[in-house]
Amino acid sequence: MVVELISVGTELLLGNIVNTNAAYLSEKCAGLGLSCFYQSVVGDNEKRLIHTIETALTRSDIVILSGGLGPTEDDLTKDAAAGVFGKEMRVDEDAREHIQEYFEKKGMEIAANNWKQAMVPEESVVLINENGTAPGFIMEQKGKVMILLPGPPNEMIPMFEKNIIPYLSRKTNSIIYSQVVKLCGISESAAEEKLADMVKSENPTVATYAKTGEVHIRVTAKEEDEKGAKKLIKPVVKELKNRFGTAVYSTDTDTTLEQSIVELLSENHLTITTAESCTGGMVAARIVNVPGASEIFKEGFITYSNKAKRRYLGVKKRTLDKYGAVSEQTAKEMAKGGILFTKSDLCIAVTGIAGPDGGTVEKPVGLVYISCAFGGKTYVEKCCFTGNRMKIRENTAVEALVFLRMCVLQHYNKMNS
Amino acid sequence: MVVELISVGTELLLGNIVNTNAAYLSEKCAGLGLSCFYQSVVGDNEKRLIHTIETALTRSDIVILSGGLGPTEDDLTKDAAAGVFGKEMRVDEDAREHIQEYFEKKGMEIAANNWKQAMVPEESVVLINENGTAPGFIMEQKGKVMILLPGPPNEMIPMFEKNIIPYLSRKTNSIIYSQVVKLCGISESAAEEKLADMVKSENPTVATYAKTGEVHIRVTAKEEDEKGAKKLIKPVVKELKNRFGTAVYSTDTDTTLEQSIVELLSENHLTITTAESCTGGMVAARIVNVPGASEIFKEGFITYSNKAKRRYLGVKKRTLDKYGAVSEQTAKEMAKGGILFTKSDLCIAVTGIAGPDGGTVEKPVGLVYISCAFGGKTYVEKCCFTGNRMKIRENTAVEALVFLRMCVLQHYNKMNS
Repeated sequence: MVVELISVGTELLLGNIVNTNAAYLSEKCAGLGLSCFYQSVVGDNEKRLIHTIETALTRSDIVILSGGLGPTEDDLTKDAAAGVFGKEMRVDEDAREHIQEYFEKKGMEIAANNWKQAMVPEESVVLINENGTAPGFIMEQKGKVMILLPGPPNEMIPMFEKNIIPYLSRKTNSIIYSQVVKLCGISESAAEEKLADMVKSENPTVATYAKTGEVHIRVTAKEEDEKGAKKLIKPVVKELKNRFGTAVYSTDTDTTLEQSIVELLSENHLTITTAESCTGGMVAARIVNVPGASEIFKEGFITYSNKAKRRYLGVKKRTLDKYGAVSEQTAKEMAKGGILFTKSDLCIAVTGIAGPDGGTVEKPVGLVYISCAFGGKTYVEKCCFTGNRMKIRENTAVEALVFLRMCVLQHYNKMNS
Repeated sequence: MVVELISVGTELLLGNIVNTNAAYLSEKCAGLGLSCFYQSVVGDNEKRLIHTIETALTRSDIVILSGGLGPTEDDLTKDAAAGVFGKEMRVDEDAREHIQEYFEKKGMEIAANNWKQAMVPEESVVLINENGTAPGFIMEQKGKVMILLPGPPNEMIPMFEKNIIPYLSRKTNSIIYSQVVKLCGISESAAEEKLADMVKSENPTVATYAKTGEVHIRVTAKEEDEKGAKKLIKPVVKELKNRFGTAVYSTDTDTTLEQSIVELLSENHLTITTAESCTGGMVAARIVNVPGASEIFKEGFITYSNKAKRRYLGVKKRTLDKYGAVSEQTAKEMAKGGILFTKSDLCIAVTGIAGPDGGTVEKPVGLVYISCAFGGKTYVEKCCFTGNRMKIRENTAVEALVFLRMCVLQHYNKMNS
């Protein structure tokens, strides 16, 4: 079956936002065994939108539209799609109630134009939006399907995963199944070199994707059913685990790096505290991303000033004066102090120069020290990151997690030899 | 003049990469005063590529293609485009020399298929690629223009800026200039209602975009030059500031909410500390996003456990027992304690239930209390957010910034009546 994507929104035509929805939907559709030959972007203009939908329906079985379902006058997708299928609009009581509840819960008044979102095309399946007010729709007619999704990714993605994946899975006969092997502490090119022979395989395919501080290897098989696909994938995943050893932090699609770390600490009954300077709370926030983090994380410090580093972590004035706030010595004292002060089992400490100002020849922007105190030892790592302030800080936060994981594994003698 | 973008590449249709080229080109073309009504993505397939080019030429004056200019058999853009204009291919000596030089410089052997890149459509302008081997092209015929650019952004962007911007500037007589008015603490639909009359304006146009916890209003004018465009925009921005008052946090494209807050605190010589529970450092991390935040932010606390709330912020055991960790009373004591303990002028405190577990009927997932202690007063706000753990926490972090800004403005009697 052939799918075609239409992204609706003048903000895309003006280049105000990047079309990440198209990438997400394409990847998911490919994973479902659907072929995609065309994608298009069209603005909030009725005539052009209708023309684009009609063209797509002549050459594709399933047309997925995203965007233009909001409450404003600009939002035309629902009416345009209904018009192409010759459907009238009707009030949907569930959608109406959902809007009322949504605003009541938020304690906000309902603007008149929000009621527009309770109007739905007749004979369509209405999909409740759990993260916003605009419902989505599935419309079928004469073997053709139109799927209408909201534009904001945080509304579109949950709706697609909950409602559209099961719907499309029933439509396709062959399935594509994939498993992700997630690595940390290795660069994409180093991972690719180790994989040179494996990426040539056709079924299952093996492909790498880089993510900040991580490399994901996706193993994808095309088979009649999930059981057959899993059988093809299993030995490949085994081989990957063999080649990459402890760099593999998970073989589960949904497990994040922070989750694997919270699990590692939890299994070993360890508690952790954070002592952050340039990341300003990003490391702790990553840990708190994980539901149930409270078991291993009780408190953290953001010690942005030197005074705070001294007061909360006991960094010595002498150390700050002699070596500076961004130094191996300060990082180590921060980590040791974090443990002493909180009685946690571990402390991960970060100090660095995120820029754009504050760099010198000896200590350039991007210089970061990460230290981990654990089990009577204090490990430290020097990093030099590139990019802007945000990129340096994001890389630092990930590297802190990777480093802390490595220290714990090393302690338990679980590292590769 | 109307421009249309065609991105060529199966990797886009499979969702392996995000189409950042389209966003870049759209924004640049809008800035040059070109209207863009359609964008499309098509794979490395000759028939479909030719069909897409032909369709684009029927409705647009200028068609910009990116991707598919490489040396492999998959790369079809050049031949397809030449075919549509009925042009033959010829060897280009300059391009041939450039390829030779490029590989010699890199000390690499030239694979046979690289010579394919020296073949160019007759009567086309050949654009040397300074960052790769695939040249670009400008082809004109009967008032229509095709521009062919390489796909990798690090090759495409320099070629566009050096060769295409000057070429297109000569073709258009007008420019498009826009300014953004950024709002916080107001919903998109409420903003839309206040703007109902203004969004109908055609030059300048007024359009809204929602961002987590923020609304951006873009005012865009089309004029002969920047000076004329600015003249059209100025009274509209003034009117927006008038209508939205203190909800406007910036009229500068690059200024973020956290930046405007750091500036507000800095102007008033105020220091701030953070006391976070469910956000786990996200509020502090947003503040530290801003270069120079150290002037107003010295330290912050992540008090995830009740014990930490008591120890670092002096929250009373009685309060926690009687009202619970997620309560108005606890939030207020956290904020007051943050000031007492750090001697900062302000403290913003956050406590809530981010889920997925931990909710009850009285205190559901999404319930958050935000408190701000400042100038002898302790302000508090109850919020009910929806969505998953991450969304609830992101919304909480933005709302904490918005609330703290409001408290400071209120203190200085700068709020709308």
